[in-house]
Amino acid sequence: MKIESVDFFYCSMPEVLDIGDGSQDALLVRIRAGGLEGWGECEASPLTSIASYVCPMSHSACKPLKYSLEGKSLNDVEDIYSISRDAQQNSFDLLQANHTLSGIDIALWDLLGKKLGEPVYRLLGYKKSYPKLPYASQLFGDTPEQTFAKALSARDSGFRAIKFGWGPFGKKDVITDAAHLEAARQGAGDDIFLMIDAGTVWNDNVEAAQQRLAALKKINAFWLEEPFTNLSAGAYHELSQSQPSIALAGGEGCNSFEQANLMLKYAGLTFIQIDAGRIGGITVAKNVADVAESQNISFVNHTFTSHLALSASLQPYAGIEKDNICEYPVELKPLARELTLTNILPDENGFILTPEKPGLGMEVNLAILKKYLQNVEIRVNGKEIYYTPSV
Amino acid sequence: MKIESVDFFYCSMPEVLDIGDGSQDALLVRIRAGGLEGWGECEASPLTSIASYVCPMSHSACKPLKYSLEGKSLNDVEDIYSISRDAQQNSFDLLQANHTLSGIDIALWDLLGKKLGEPVYRLLGYKKSYPKLPYASQLFGDTPEQTFAKALSARDSGFRAIKFGWGPFGKKDVITDAAHLEAARQGAGDDIFLMIDAGTVWNDNVEAAQQRLAALKKINAFWLEEPFTNLSAGAYHELSQSQPSIALAGGEGCNSFEQANLMLKYAGLTFIQIDAGRIGGITVAKNVADVAESQNISFVNHTFTSHLALSASLQPYAGIEKDNICEYPVELKPLARELTLTNILPDENGFILTPEKPGLGMEVNLAILKKYLQNVEIRVNGKEIYYTPSV
Repeated sequence: MKIESVDFFYCSMPEVLDIGDGSQDALLVRIRAGGLEGWGECEASPLTSIASYVCPMSHSACKPLKYSLEGKSLNDVEDIYSISRDAQQNSFDLLQANHTLSGIDIALWDLLGKKLGEPVYRLLGYKKSYPKLPYASQLFGDTPEQTFAKALSARDSGFRAIKFGWGPFGKKDVITDAAHLEAARQGAGDDIFLMIDAGTVWNDNVEAAQQRLAALKKINAFWLEEPFTNLSAGAYHELSQSQPSIALAGGEGCNSFEQANLMLKYAGLTFIQIDAGRIGGITVAKNVADVAESQNISFVNHTFTSHLALSASLQPYAGIEKDNICEYPVELKPLARELTLTNILPDENGFILTPEKPGLGMEVNLAILKKYLQNVEIRVNGKEIYYTPSV
Repeated sequence: MKIESVDFFYCSMPEVLDIGDGSQDALLVRIRAGGLEGWGECEASPLTSIASYVCPMSHSACKPLKYSLEGKSLNDVEDIYSISRDAQQNSFDLLQANHTLSGIDIALWDLLGKKLGEPVYRLLGYKKSYPKLPYASQLFGDTPEQTFAKALSARDSGFRAIKFGWGPFGKKDVITDAAHLEAARQGAGDDIFLMIDAGTVWNDNVEAAQQRLAALKKINAFWLEEPFTNLSAGAYHELSQSQPSIALAGGEGCNSFEQANLMLKYAGLTFIQIDAGRIGGITVAKNVADVAESQNISFVNHTFTSHLALSASLQPYAGIEKDNICEYPVELKPLARELTLTNILPDENGFILTPEKPGLGMEVNLAILKKYLQNVEIRVNGKEIYYTPSV
């Protein structure tokens, strides 16, 4: 079948707050071919990504994404690999390209899965998928009391793993941070996996991170995530060698295979966290999962948006049995929470499963999409080169 | 003084060809404050970069660039460092941001230089600037005969260093490539520095690059540039250890300090090539120059656009005496060639000098800017959030 259309839908909550919550807007991609449609989601600035799809060509290595999609065939997995390679080649000087390609690639896999009647993970070569233990991923409270209450609530909801991140953590003194960590552990209880996400707060300041290691050890933190700016591999490595020893997680900011590969090679990570909605899609994320597996580094999804994105982020490592932890956002804004008609829910054992239905196995709620839709129009020299298509 | 306006001007040749020539369009940035104006240029997809300046906020780490600029003070270099840090912090999940920030940062330095009556390199801490030997940077011919003629012509124009890149090189067999290399050397003569740019053609295929080393050695290539995709540090390093030994150059694709830092640390480079119009501006490029100097790796500008961009790219290493090679585009399209009222020309010894006038020392030709201007209009929900300002 031939790709007939690639459509973007920019959705947003009426009010976007200045907080580290990526579920406040969404860029959905719909690709139609052969009477079917596939859906994907970019974890990206929606307007900027739309511009990267329709912009005029600047030169041979700075082409709009549409150049690599329009009129292409989609019949088997090789077609997706070929489009992914083409897009990266044709647009490698267009910085935004990989964020945009991510949603496109996800939609292509969804579409192909529907055509072939297979869940995406099987098309990726996995024979079966393994259950993942979801960690309730949420922001620190403004005060230790709030953090305590949030931990308690997550535990009461049945989660066996909880992650706190961002908010005030790392921004004030070590004592304040220790109070939040203690509160999180007290609220969660001793039998819960507890992850801590510093949200790159220390840039590349190794000493600032080292000062928190004792408090992290005391609460038996399962990992410390993103202490430093993405790609600060030297700082990561130094921290990985520091005492007391805490497993490091990172990589969500990686926007290409090469970036993730560098982090795998040099950063001393125990966990590599990949967002299929950023790194170039499921195709690139699967490549990272393969390399991580060969180096005995655990692959974990990064997902802070809808369950469409969650399904996409699970596919690349669905079949790796030992990598059994997954990020599971629990504070989604209504837009992200309601964007799919069904959500991926923990089973009675507290595990989640990658959907078995064809493609990503998720259905977009068009009413919700319409409710939050932002109409975009771009003109160059008076000529309309983009307008939001009809739902 | 306070920043009063940040304006973008997207210029383009009437026809943009599918060739590796980055001078076919341009995104100019004009910043006004205190009765003065500074100019910068982004080496970027213009429309996509404009969108990244005006887009609505997605979350706390995905803010439009304007958030870090509007209403800010600009009185000394610390103000620029502060804006640069803020922008990288506020927009680090907005992939296009660093390309856009690059032109903004360049314009800020130009503006501050004009206010303080100093060339930018002095504001960066250099006491004086040193002459640079420009290499005529051009594309390979389609045939070895054309490559020969281009080399001869560059030599006859007085250049003592010539670089060929892109075009057919690396895409066919080793014999064809050797023929181009021989033709380039024959046309240039034996006393000319001859650089070869593979334009990332071998992705991360080390063997493909190794197969060309003998031919490169035979023509005494001064360096082999970008054999691999940017950030493929492992492949670079392996090639750097291969025989016959050829100095490697790379880094033009780096979009952040962290990326360049990784290349400096792991890629086995002899030359790091930085485009101030991509990496986040003069501020970030100077940071890279400092680290490169400490590691005894030579800094070289990457410039394939206007002489405004050329001046900007010279500033970060103007004061490093030993780093005396500079890229000098010789096949600029009229837009880029005429965009400044004066150009930076080689002196009687064949060297070029960083301008001594305040700021970047270049004046934008507004008539040319108007001639090639592309009017852009962006609306979200019917509200105009961007239109091309008046020149």
